[in-house]
Amino acid sequence: MGNCSQGCKDYFSRQKNTNIRLTLPVVCFVWQIAMIILFGVFIRYDEESDAHWVETKAHDNITSDIENDFYFRYPSFQDVHVMIFVGFGFLMTFLKRYSFGAVGFNFLIASFGLQWALLMQGWFHSLDPQTGKIFIGIESLINADFCVAGCLIAYGAVLGKVSPVQLLHSLGYYGLSISRVLYRPNLHQSKRMQGSVYHSDTFAMIGTLFLWMFWPSFNSAITDHGDGQHRAVINTYLCLASTVLTTVAISSLSQKTGKLDMVHIQNSTLAGGVALGTAAEFMISPYGALIVGFFCGIISTMGYIFISPFLEKTLKIQDTCGIHNLHAMPGVIGGIVGAITAAAASESVYGKQGLINTFDFTGDFKDRTVLTQGGYQAAGMCVSIVFGVVGGAIVGSILKLPIWGDPADENCFDDEVYWEVREPATHHLLSESNFSVEHCES
Amino acid sequence: MGNCSQGCKDYFSRQKNTNIRLTLPVVCFVWQIAMIILFGVFIRYDEESDAHWVETKAHDNITSDIENDFYFRYPSFQDVHVMIFVGFGFLMTFLKRYSFGAVGFNFLIASFGLQWALLMQGWFHSLDPQTGKIFIGIESLINADFCVAGCLIAYGAVLGKVSPVQLLHSLGYYGLSISRVLYRPNLHQSKRMQGSVYHSDTFAMIGTLFLWMFWPSFNSAITDHGDGQHRAVINTYLCLASTVLTTVAISSLSQKTGKLDMVHIQNSTLAGGVALGTAAEFMISPYGALIVGFFCGIISTMGYIFISPFLEKTLKIQDTCGIHNLHAMPGVIGGIVGAITAAAASESVYGKQGLINTFDFTGDFKDRTVLTQGGYQAAGMCVSIVFGVVGGAIVGSILKLPIWGDPADENCFDDEVYWEVREPATHHLLSESNFSVEHCES
Amino acid sequence: MGNCSQGCKDYFSRQKNTNIRLTLPVVCFVWQIAMIILFGVFIRYDEESDAHWVETKAHDNITSDIENDFYFRYPSFQDVHVMIFVGFGFLMTFLKRYSFGAVGFNFLIASFGLQWALLMQGWFHSLDPQTGKIFIGIESLINADFCVAGCLIAYGAVLGKVSPVQLLHSLGYYGLSISRVLYRPNLHQSKRMQGSVYHSDTFAMIGTLFLWMFWPSFNSAITDHGDGQHRAVINTYLCLASTVLTTVAISSLSQKTGKLDMVHIQNSTLAGGVALGTAAEFMISPYGALIVGFFCGIISTMGYIFISPFLEKTLKIQDTCGIHNLHAMPGVIGGIVGAITAAAASESVYGKQGLINTFDFTGDFKDRTVLTQGGYQAAGMCVSIVFGVVGGAIVGSILKLPIWGDPADENCFDDEVYWEVREPATHHLLSESNFSVEHCES
Repeated sequence: MGNCSQGCKDYFSRQKNTNIRLTLPVVCFVWQIAMIILFGVFIRYDEESDAHWVETKAHDNITSDIENDFYFRYPSFQDVHVMIFVGFGFLMTFLKRYSFGAVGFNFLIASFGLQWALLMQGWFHSLDPQTGKIFIGIESLINADFCVAGCLIAYGAVLGKVSPVQLLHSLGYYGLSISRVLYRPNLHQSKRMQGSVYHSDTFAMIGTLFLWMFWPSFNSAITDHGDGQHRAVINTYLCLASTVLTTVAISSLSQKTGKLDMVHIQNSTLAGGVALGTAAEFMISPYGALIVGFFCGIISTMGYIFISPFLEKTLKIQDTCGIHNLHAMPGVIGGIVGAITAAAASESVYGKQGLINTFDFTGDFKDRTVLTQGGYQAAGMCVSIVFGVVGGAIVGSILKLPIWGDPADENCFDDEVYWEVREPATHHLLSESNFSVEHCES
Repeated sequence: MGNCSQGCKDYFSRQKNTNIRLTLPVVCFVWQIAMIILFGVFIRYDEESDAHWVETKAHDNITSDIENDFYFRYPSFQDVHVMIFVGFGFLMTFLKRYSFGAVGFNFLIASFGLQWALLMQGWFHSLDPQTGKIFIGIESLINADFCVAGCLIAYGAVLGKVSPVQLLHSLGYYGLSISRVLYRPNLHQSKRMQGSVYHSDTFAMIGTLFLWMFWPSFNSAITDHGDGQHRAVINTYLCLASTVLTTVAISSLSQKTGKLDMVHIQNSTLAGGVALGTAAEFMISPYGALIVGFFCGIISTMGYIFISPFLEKTLKIQDTCGIHNLHAMPGVIGGIVGAITAAAASESVYGKQGLINTFDFTGDFKDRTVLTQGGYQAAGMCVSIVFGVVGGAIVGSILKLPIWGDPADENCFDDEVYWEVREPATHHLLSESNFSVEHCES
Repeated sequence: MGNCSQGCKDYFSRQKNTNIRLTLPVVCFVWQIAMIILFGVFIRYDEESDAHWVETKAHDNITSDIENDFYFRYPSFQDVHVMIFVGFGFLMTFLKRYSFGAVGFNFLIASFGLQWALLMQGWFHSLDPQTGKIFIGIESLINADFCVAGCLIAYGAVLGKVSPVQLLHSLGYYGLSISRVLYRPNLHQSKRMQGSVYHSDTFAMIGTLFLWMFWPSFNSAITDHGDGQHRAVINTYLCLASTVLTTVAISSLSQKTGKLDMVHIQNSTLAGGVALGTAAEFMISPYGALIVGFFCGIISTMGYIFISPFLEKTLKIQDTCGIHNLHAMPGVIGGIVGAITAAAASESVYGKQGLINTFDFTGDFKDRTVLTQGGYQAAGMCVSIVFGVVGGAIVGSILKLPIWGDPADENCFDDEVYWEVREPATHHLLSESNFSVEHCES
């Protein structure tokens, strides 16, 4: 590589067209203009964010501004926002020369994704039948951030291997089966870039910690006011703490000398938060939360040690960020925990009204029993998995079409393909070097 | 430079006196003691932060502690605080060897500035006529942070070119016209330091992201309780998302191969937040917010591409951080948007009481019409621009006096002038590296 | 070091057994399982986080969910959480090759510590006499984080010199006297690792700033609702601002050319927050807060300049992070300030009810006078110091036993002992470099 800095790079680049000068601006402009038009047609402020609230409030006998949903949810919203933009963005900076791509493309996808999510959610969940409008408030923004989180997890699976244009097109689908279809047999050519270095691992810890710290907000942001939010925070907090200890234990066990592996600490410590996604609000008890975390740390870390190499060798799925271990498996654990807890819920544990509030047994669902609820949650989980796999396969196939400007195998994981990197190629070789002039000149 | 490590550095340094050992401590001590005295004379806790609140509250028929303004504004205050110290601080770490200066001097200026701002605001806006005291609460702290933001933006313009003593003296004025007067014709001598490197750009993204994420708090922190804060958040959030897409589009268009430029992503993505500074609380509609963001991204990025080089060549304004593109132009857009929206406001959109609340048409202003309001806002914007340019020119002239210990042209953008940098001088030459392979191979 | 990369490292490592493969996983698993059992026996949701709250609330005539303690304290809790995990973690990344250890072990200790703290606090302070259970809510989580902060400060003192197993065993004791007993006479062998480098200092500033920004939340998180929290924030905010200026002044004075030292800026700027730990809620007046900060900045920075070298030479205490200057001395100042302010409190300053609320003069304490209160606070401070010194000495002695897998003197401050560092040892010299020595020498 030393003698082949610019020349052969250009050569390889020419083989595969990574020029995004036309496609990226066009996609950005067209989609943003489409958003403006669709927002103009469909989206309005909801009751609590509209200037008429002063009248609505009086009508609803609300005596204080503090009852506006804004004050119940805004602190949690901001934490979720930090998770999306700093957490996911920096978590992916662990690659040696892909920090710009990790943080920058994360930024781009999330910014587009949240607009799109506001529309999609509105159309499918909350379109007002009388006016045909979607009314948005702070809870909609949180939900939009949640949808974006799903996309960013998918981004983790294909990190460094796709172009920004492909990214914008793959929104909303899980990335693992995409990753299967996009398998690159010659990717070992850019393996030297897939490693992490000291500073990139430290940057990645910024991402991990913000995700870990704010996951209680993530799991409590849209649960019921009052004890619901309160309990979701306590459960998630305890579950995550427990995950850290078992992650460290398994990571240390996996190495001959007991050294810890940064990859495990950066990722598996978060598995407990994923697993409580469904059940955080339930009365699972503080020790129940610890137990869930205990197993999540073990299973997720073992996933990195045993399952990731297996996936790559046998099923040809290159899971750069290990999303299978961090999201898929803990997600399934969480689904099971949720279904069991729901099925086991009783009036003695929740209280009569508490049971109704927690499981939303109102309106059409007011005669639903907890057993039925548990069954529904289990079924929902299976549907999600099927959707993820099938949807991902379809999207992956589309992305394989040779029109997206994706990087050549040997340029994967390298920022220089899509970003202006300011160091001249030769200097890069010595960057942050302790190499002394004396040593060299002798 | 390779053979001239310490000797010639000392030589150049001697030419211009960068010794701040006397001036910096003296300024710090004198000003801090002055603050203590002035605070002792003027500043007291306000009603809601005084221990007598338990009685005041009863008198005002407030039944719950949650009605204390603290709970309405503290989450937003903390976000603004993060923007000031982490956001602005890290945004300016993009320079190769000026991270300490960026983060450290930002810290110093902001810490002094917020004390000064509490006094200035109090004297000019809220001095109690009966007692002659300034009563402060959480809203005062937010306002002080806002004032500091203005100063830090000015710091961005002169980043790396002034001494900490000059910085403390330039508080409160916009920096762009200062930059004109402080123009250094020989600055190309330290151009090698003005570049960014890989890690410094990644650090800068920490700044960008915290600014971007928390801008909704910035624009909503001191707006009206209830729907006002709620709406300001929604508008800013949407506007910023839209800005990211058009920034990426223009940045990609500006390069031959469509590669993205970190400078644009770091800065122009924030322009939407600046532009909604005035109008965030207004009923501009969600799609209106998207439209503002759309144009801000385009105009700000084009500013970096076309206007910054023009400013430097023609008007001799060296705008290190591009504050013209990030703050001045979007600020003007925001002023125009604010004036138009105010002029177009109507009772049908806001409701009778909503209109009064939003525009503070109470007391002396209770007969003001929206058209007059719009006119006033337009006039206010013009006054701001004139104040900025004239004030900046005066401050800049004062700072040109040869008593401030500012760095020599060839030491600009280098931390070693004002900070203990722990690496030995020879290694410094290679770190991040100025050392070429040719040198080695000869 | 160049010719002795792997071989002699192994050799030295063999001298002292740093293999943690057995001990670390065993400790993690055993302790986590113990936590699960103890939580199962003792810990339950409190009234406000239990699903029965809907009934409790009605019984207590609470009309709105916003009265749940969660909404009073959750924003502060999250800030404290950031201080613990990002603040303390990154503050300690200043060592050249110990970022993983700083952030990673901080993460491990804190995760275990908060579970342990919930139990300890519960047993000693809030065990319900009827049920024998500990009921937890958001305030318990904040208190647990506070306890963890104490442990992490201790970690700072022994940073880089102990194994993770020792760390888990030393929870809950102050580290300074531990540090005395663990004194390593040959530590100069790894002095080359104790330095900081440019990027590690920039990472450390992330820690400093998050600690500095969120210290107002730390000091206000569990004070009284309403004006108590409000006032604690204002006081801490002002005190910290004042500390920055005097820290800069003394730091600049201490160097021949007036250059600033990153160590002082990273640490002493926080001393004001420590000092107000006791007195933040009191009516010390805004200018009183500035005065406390003024002296804290001076004393703490002078501690780094004069006392740290003295401690190491004379008393053989190696205080890697300078916790004596940041926590011990400002803590004593704070204790004194607290005792004086308490003794000087009067009904005219606080109001009758305010005085009772602020000092909790209720129940058994309802006849306590302010003078007695002041005396108690002074006595409490002395007890703390004695406990810290004696307890630390005992723990340190235990940790000296040769069973803990602690690093050899020459491996102190080096991540490679306990972490997989992905760069090969020879490349380490050229870190983040693809340039090989052979290449150069040929």
